[in-house]
Amino acid sequence: MSFNTFGRMFRVSTWGESHGPALGATVDGCPPGVLLEPAMIQHWLDKRKPGQNKYTTQRREADEVEILSGVFEGQTTGTPIQLMIRNTDQRSKDYSEISSKFRPGHADITYWQKYGIRDYRGGGRSSARETAARVAAGGVARQAIKALAPGCRITGYMVQMGPHGIDRTRLDLDEIARNPFWVPDATAAEAWAGYLDGLRKSGSSVGAVIEVVAQGVPAGLGAPVYGKLDTDLAAAMMSINAVKGVEIGEGMAAATLTGEANADEIFMGNDGEPVFSSNHAGGILGGISTGQDVVVRFAVKPTSSILKPRKTITKSGAATEIVTKGRHDPCVGIRAVPVGEAMMACVILDHLLLHRGQIGENRGKIG
Amino acid sequence: MSFNTFGRMFRVSTWGESHGPALGATVDGCPPGVLLEPAMIQHWLDKRKPGQNKYTTQRREADEVEILSGVFEGQTTGTPIQLMIRNTDQRSKDYSEISSKFRPGHADITYWQKYGIRDYRGGGRSSARETAARVAAGGVARQAIKALAPGCRITGYMVQMGPHGIDRTRLDLDEIARNPFWVPDATAAEAWAGYLDGLRKSGSSVGAVIEVVAQGVPAGLGAPVYGKLDTDLAAAMMSINAVKGVEIGEGMAAATLTGEANADEIFMGNDGEPVFSSNHAGGILGGISTGQDVVVRFAVKPTSSILKPRKTITKSGAATEIVTKGRHDPCVGIRAVPVGEAMMACVILDHLLLHRGQIGENRGKIG
Amino acid sequence: MSFNTFGRMFRVSTWGESHGPALGATVDGCPPGVLLEPAMIQHWLDKRKPGQNKYTTQRREADEVEILSGVFEGQTTGTPIQLMIRNTDQRSKDYSEISSKFRPGHADITYWQKYGIRDYRGGGRSSARETAARVAAGGVARQAIKALAPGCRITGYMVQMGPHGIDRTRLDLDEIARNPFWVPDATAAEAWAGYLDGLRKSGSSVGAVIEVVAQGVPAGLGAPVYGKLDTDLAAAMMSINAVKGVEIGEGMAAATLTGEANADEIFMGNDGEPVFSSNHAGGILGGISTGQDVVVRFAVKPTSSILKPRKTITKSGAATEIVTKGRHDPCVGIRAVPVGEAMMACVILDHLLLHRGQIGENRGKIG
Amino acid sequence: MSFNTFGRMFRVSTWGESHGPALGATVDGCPPGVLLEPAMIQHWLDKRKPGQNKYTTQRREADEVEILSGVFEGQTTGTPIQLMIRNTDQRSKDYSEISSKFRPGHADITYWQKYGIRDYRGGGRSSARETAARVAAGGVARQAIKALAPGCRITGYMVQMGPHGIDRTRLDLDEIARNPFWVPDATAAEAWAGYLDGLRKSGSSVGAVIEVVAQGVPAGLGAPVYGKLDTDLAAAMMSINAVKGVEIGEGMAAATLTGEANADEIFMGNDGEPVFSSNHAGGILGGISTGQDVVVRFAVKPTSSILKPRKTITKSGAATEIVTKGRHDPCVGIRAVPVGEAMMACVILDHLLLHRGQIGENRGKIG
Repeated sequence: MSFNTFGRMFRVSTWGESHGPALGATVDGCPPGVLLEPAMIQHWLDKRKPGQNKYTTQRREADEVEILSGVFEGQTTGTPIQLMIRNTDQRSKDYSEISSKFRPGHADITYWQKYGIRDYRGGGRSSARETAARVAAGGVARQAIKALAPGCRITGYMVQMGPHGIDRTRLDLDEIARNPFWVPDATAAEAWAGYLDGLRKSGSSVGAVIEVVAQGVPAGLGAPVYGKLDTDLAAAMMSINAVKGVEIGEGMAAATLTGEANADEIFMGNDGEPVFSSNHAGGILGGISTGQDVVVRFAVKPTSSILKPRKTITKSGAATEIVTKGRHDPCVGIRAVPVGEAMMACVILDHLLLHRGQIGENRGKIG
Repeated sequence: MSFNTFGRMFRVSTWGESHGPALGATVDGCPPGVLLEPAMIQHWLDKRKPGQNKYTTQRREADEVEILSGVFEGQTTGTPIQLMIRNTDQRSKDYSEISSKFRPGHADITYWQKYGIRDYRGGGRSSARETAARVAAGGVARQAIKALAPGCRITGYMVQMGPHGIDRTRLDLDEIARNPFWVPDATAAEAWAGYLDGLRKSGSSVGAVIEVVAQGVPAGLGAPVYGKLDTDLAAAMMSINAVKGVEIGEGMAAATLTGEANADEIFMGNDGEPVFSSNHAGGILGGISTGQDVVVRFAVKPTSSILKPRKTITKSGAATEIVTKGRHDPCVGIRAVPVGEAMMACVILDHLLLHRGQIGENRGKIG
Repeated sequence: MSFNTFGRMFRVSTWGESHGPALGATVDGCPPGVLLEPAMIQHWLDKRKPGQNKYTTQRREADEVEILSGVFEGQTTGTPIQLMIRNTDQRSKDYSEISSKFRPGHADITYWQKYGIRDYRGGGRSSARETAARVAAGGVARQAIKALAPGCRITGYMVQMGPHGIDRTRLDLDEIARNPFWVPDATAAEAWAGYLDGLRKSGSSVGAVIEVVAQGVPAGLGAPVYGKLDTDLAAAMMSINAVKGVEIGEGMAAATLTGEANADEIFMGNDGEPVFSSNHAGGILGGISTGQDVVVRFAVKPTSSILKPRKTITKSGAATEIVTKGRHDPCVGIRAVPVGEAMMACVILDHLLLHRGQIGENRGKIG
Repeated sequence: MSFNTFGRMFRVSTWGESHGPALGATVDGCPPGVLLEPAMIQHWLDKRKPGQNKYTTQRREADEVEILSGVFEGQTTGTPIQLMIRNTDQRSKDYSEISSKFRPGHADITYWQKYGIRDYRGGGRSSARETAARVAAGGVARQAIKALAPGCRITGYMVQMGPHGIDRTRLDLDEIARNPFWVPDATAAEAWAGYLDGLRKSGSSVGAVIEVVAQGVPAGLGAPVYGKLDTDLAAAMMSINAVKGVEIGEGMAAATLTGEANADEIFMGNDGEPVFSSNHAGGILGGISTGQDVVVRFAVKPTSSILKPRKTITKSGAATEIVTKGRHDPCVGIRAVPVGEAMMACVILDHLLLHRGQIGENRGKIG
């Protein structure tokens, strides 16, 4: 089993290092006849692109995607789609110090211990830059979803930054694109700007919680017992750099509820589809989608590269200190928003194909 | 890709329904020469077995495991190990009502919508009874880990039940086996007993948080980027029935930390291995184990089967109410403890084998 | 990746040893709603069953299949189907000698060298008895194919035994069931009876070639480049015990043809589907089915267990001789016929599901 | 499961079309620390490269490989290796006719029927050009094999072209590189030159049989039952364009042998390893390597693109004729030699890693 591939039927293999010539994604299993042009992918890459404002790394990458295969006359052919992004702004000199010291909170020490060799430049394969390839693949998935489940919409946003959460009574998805944090709460956006400015200037960083919602997911996606929709979502989100926790629907707070509080009661909707009194389940029961919104949250730890000196050791085991002077984000959680959306898109598409393969179409009608 | 299989190299496929003749696990990829007798598996099954005290379902299953293949003269042969557990106490009459109504919080409605047919007896494939097969497979994994990483110890325990958390200053792993909740805090155990009694009598239920710790995991296990150790752990835990959230190390709380607070500083230990000032990372950096304790937590939602009437619909779409009268646990989280341990064991073993396959042994020495 | 599993979406994991308590197959990914009762599987097992005439091993196994999961009220539920066959006639005493000697042509020596432990009784996991589990799984696949591609028929037969081939001008599929060799040529059947009697009495054995044809396979099954229909068929057939060669359509003889002789010219049929002037391709072009008959042949080596003494060594490396006195078939190729059919059924079903998953239905119309 | 990926632990995903901007291979699971520079891969690509003599297509491709990831300072890092080859000599005008007609013997018709869209230029994904990516991946595999099994040598050569076979009494591996057919028999090489000249001038083509031998493969590689070494080799070779048959050791001829003729008797060698009186088994027993030479043969059908008119139909179903005027090989079997070697290398390496993962090292000593 491959370590750099995810998905079962819609399979994405990403490759590339932060400071190599290029990185990309090999996307296999995409249905044929899906409309696909570079601009449709570029749209999402631009959203993730670093250097767009003072809250994200000042590395300036065009992040321009090239489609090298699998598309003919603007449509997918059903063969593998190679998406390549050239690295253009690798300032390798920034990283000379880390060739011999292990940065706390980074994968430096574990890659070294496992492999005995590591491309230390910019974190190599463990760099958050790898997520550009995910976003590109997610762009393909979104186009295929448009064809297979046209009512499906995937939206990610930040719901917490450090100690500051949003006020859900003010939640307004239209606000997401209007602020640099992808936060659906205008008041929070303003407050967070000041908070993050302070952190940035002090050379510190902070964590965040991202929520990704898929609306219009057909009932019936997912599968018992190890191919559950929530299982695959948990794996997809936990595989993103710096993620330390994943929640579905009520999430960790489900532990605090009683059975009666947690039960999403069921009613018959006017359109002949079941409706629920609440969505503690996050749109998934027994690993299978209910037709409600699929709701996932994940926590991103604070950027490990900070300007405050931390104690560490060298490759030869000597005690030392390190200050990471590269170009970094005070809150990597910001750029994780489009990555979380991309992973959601890939998982949903994968399950649309798996479901169609095993079942054809939903078989159990109600009423 | 199979929906009822997990693992990459040490692969476990579970099968069986709650009220069918039997259930079990096909365990493939186990190394040869591992000492294995039924008692070594039975030990763990007995821990999970229902009906042991008033806090778990009164269904009485012997849960006796039979090894049907893969073992010869007390040792594994490297061929698939079939573990079968006969169902003996299926009271199918208890479940007649649910053949036509969907229980809120259960997989009844989604299985119906997906498949158009479901074995409604006891929840069929979606029953928590499936976890017995995981525990059996985990028993095999533990034996193999003994051979490959003899210093490794896996321990699970409850850290929260409803609103009540443990006091970590009182944490004592020796307490775990002394109370019915697998809680490592004697004071909490006593308090929780009264709390859960009340819930049980009122026909209610409550959620819980389980923590599973693997000590003595060698540095270097795991792999970028989609085969991360934490990714596989997240999938493994989220696949357990009723789990709604998974955390590694600091978990969701990582969102609230600053970079300097979250950095586990690195020092050289007296034994020539690195040591860390803290373990916010939960023993994993960049998806690869650091040699620290691997720490996972997961939240189990409250048992959906409760004695309080909930609103729902029938298969024909008519509004109705349901009270689930079967034999159930007021806190399924209790029985999830050995299940979480089993999943940890399977994931650790899988990564031991994967690591040995690709790398042989750790290559990067420090010092 | 598991070593005892085949298939991508319709996945079969077989388990069990020749002289253990049982063997079987875990069948995962079967569509729901497929009619399935034990008799439908038993039908095919009875065809493979040993001891039916003097040309097959005199071991007497009922080979009675039990369905332990995945079926409810006579229909598959979409969850894993566990098929178990108890071993009942293990005469372990027959095999004591082979615990210390390696039988030439058998897996004795390689299992020992690889694993350092082997269940030598009856060949353990390497016994042809494992193929009973394949036949059982094939029975499930045939039922699912009936639902998905009702026009599909799968037929296997022997076309060569030792030096004797059939005369294709006499080929009559109705003859297959009328003779003990599954040969579609009455004249050959008679001649081969005498030939095989002679071999049997002299304690010798002989090889065979089996042909399996799938009629009515829809055009479009298969996939470039490593999921070709012929690639999967080659793997499926080569995985059967004692198989040493696999051919698709023209097979090895394709090497001797010129391009113009090999070209299957294309015409438009009366029913709006293309027809071909010939079928050198064996129904597959570029790895994808053409709608013609899918034709596979495989060669089975002579039974290695013979009554003539052969030179070998013991586990301690001492030179010795061995005569295999167990109950064996003078031509294992005979019993390979239903096994080849079963593998064809599993591969065709797998590709029906994969195709439906990625494509939905064929997209390219002609005319 | 991905359709464009092969291998279990050493996984190769190829991508790209004949006339797209580039094609390549994503190689995942390679051990770290393997010496790898472009020249080590280019060496094998040059062997396969078209246009080298009058017997292969006159398309002139530099087939220059770029390593885009996974290598740092001349060594593999254990992360995915992206190998890209730019297409430079696409004469798309040659292929305009085939956009509307189906070439007999080509994948034109099946790709159309399956996908409803096809990149018809040069055969798109079904072009033999895809095999360049396999050869590149094989180059990586060879470097890793050097590190893991230094005694292993992989050699491919042609043993039959049309009706002409080699004389095995003249077999001399040193001859392979001295003639344009990779034939290990100088006399045959001379005779075949005239034969193929005639075919080429008449616009015809012919098939071939290639043999690939791996010497020095350690005993113990492979696995029961669906991960047999011969099963994986059969799949690997059958996945190569135009291959119609695969044989291991004695191959199809095993059908004609008696058990005593087929038995490779076992003796103890002077070096403490078993030796065999013959190698009918092709170096594999029960799916596991014996330590003898692993011997595979495969038949390549004659090039389907010929200058003689063949009857076919158009996309609209009208009867027509086609003459394929592009640049093609009179015997594609010639260029299949390095491809077969590459596939052998990938399979051997995959099994070296799988074996090390499950077993560590061979456990069963003899003597």
